[in-house]
This record gives sequence, C-alpha cells and structure tokens, in this order.
Amino acid sequence: MSPKPGDRAGRPPPGSRGPPLRRPLTGAAGPRHPLLWWGVLVVHVHVHVVPDQVEAFRAATVANARESVREPGIARFDVLQQEGDATRFVLVEVYRDEAAPARHKETAHYQTWRDAVAPMMASPRTSVRFANTFPADDAW
Amino acid sequence: MSPKPGDRAGRPPPGSRGPPLRRPLTGAAGPRHPLLWWGVLVVHVHVHVVPDQVEAFRAATVANARESVREPGIARFDVLQQEGDATRFVLVEVYRDEAAPARHKETAHYQTWRDAVAPMMASPRTSVRFANTFPADDAW
Repeated sequence: MSPKPGDRAGRPPPGSRGPPLRRPLTGAAGPRHPLLWWGVLVVHVHVHVVPDQVEAFRAATVANARESVREPGIARFDVLQQEGDATRFVLVEVYRDEAAPARHKETAHYQTWRDAVAPMMASPRTSVRFANTFPADDAW
Repeated sequence: MSPKPGDRAGRPPPGSRGPPLRRPLTGAAGPRHPLLWWGVLVVHVHVHVVPDQVEAFRAATVANARESVREPGIARFDVLQQEGDATRFVLVEVYRDEAAPARHKETAHYQTWRDAVAPMMASPRTSVRFANTFPADDAW
C-alpha cells in the first residue's frame, strides 16, 4: 500500500532509516528499547465529580489544561463534559512520546491540580491508553 | 471570573450580543432554538471489532477519517486503537455545531464506511456525546 497523506502507515519514523515501527498493542510494562520509535500516545482519563464540585473541578481542570498544552511533550489536553451527566468529564491527553506522561506528572501545575481535585472525586479516576492511528503523528 | 485565552467561559458566542450560552447538559432530545449557540460537540464512538477484522477495520476507518476531516462541519476525526486490546477502537469526532453529525451521515464516505464495517463488529457500537470545555471552540 503506498503512503498517503494523513496516514502513519508507510512513513518511516522520524530520524529512522528503516521501515515504520508500530506501537506494540500489548499494554505490557516490559522494557522498551530507547532507540525504538513509539509515536503519539493518547490517554483518556474518565472523571466522576461530586455534584456540588462540578464548577470547581471545571475551573481547576481548565487551569491545568492551559498550562499542560505548553509542555513540549503534550500535543493536546482537551477537557470534555458529558452530555446528560454534568458530573462526568473526559480529559483527552495527547502525548508526543512514551516519556511525556511521567514528565507531565512532575510539573507544578499537575501536582496543584491533583491535590485540588482529590476531594472532588465521586469515584476514583480511570484511564485508558491508545495508540494513535489517524491522523499522522506529526499532524497532532 | 475574567475571560482568559483558551477558555470559552466569558466569551460571547460568535455573532451574539448577549452573554455566553453554555450547551445545556441535559441530553434531552427536545426542541432546540435555532438562534442559540451550541458550540463544539465531541462524540466518542466506541468500537469492538472481531479479531480477524482488525486490520480491515483500521484501513476502512482511516479512509473514512481522511475524507471526514475535509467536511466543513468537522474539526477533527481521530482514530485511536486501545493498548492491551487491539480489537477496541475509539473514534474521536469533533463537530463544529449541532447540525454537523447529521450532515456527516449523509456523505458517501460515511455510508461506504458504515456498510463496510457492519460485518466486522464484535458488538454494537456505542457513543457518548460531550460539550467542549477546553480549548476554546475556535481553537479546534
């Protein structure tokens, strides 16, 4: 299949001479070779807030998102509020590489947010990790 | 709270003279006034594919996404594949207004995709609708 714009398949990884490497979809936490190219990582964080903290959570989370998108390892940090249940949010966090989530958690804005929202949770946050498929990694 | 860049709160809707209107988070399918401003609508479509159709689904869905992002009503159409379970995908569809999803479903590329993937589903698709909170609607 020939490469097409907007599709990662067929394009070599940046700085590589070889064929494209796909992120292995194993979810395994085993060792990862530092020379491999892992591509864009997307994390959806599902949040359930107690009803009287919805606006406080929204404000704290937008403040955190505004700082997060300035991190070089973060391509997007979208904040979405569910229709039909205003107490439910999804944070769509798009990281440029595998190391970026850990660097994000070292920032002052993340730690401020984490502590501020801790008492606002109706249930523990859950997250799901995804490999990017479309658009191309460099189009995020 | 004063308006800040990147936050919709505090900004009047485009073309409006009044205060900002927030999308009502009721999920109700009742009548909606055509003069109200509804803002960016995000839909997450959760897909579970039968194992031997994963690559066929991926190819059909990337082809559909590539056409969908050319629709004026669509800001993004991301395709994500879950880590740890390659048979699960999420389509992140970002519509510029309330009418855009219906227009999308009228396109040839959507209808081709819908018919192509119908026999690939391991279970019926589900979707969740969200109001955009960050970034600002005009930053998508």
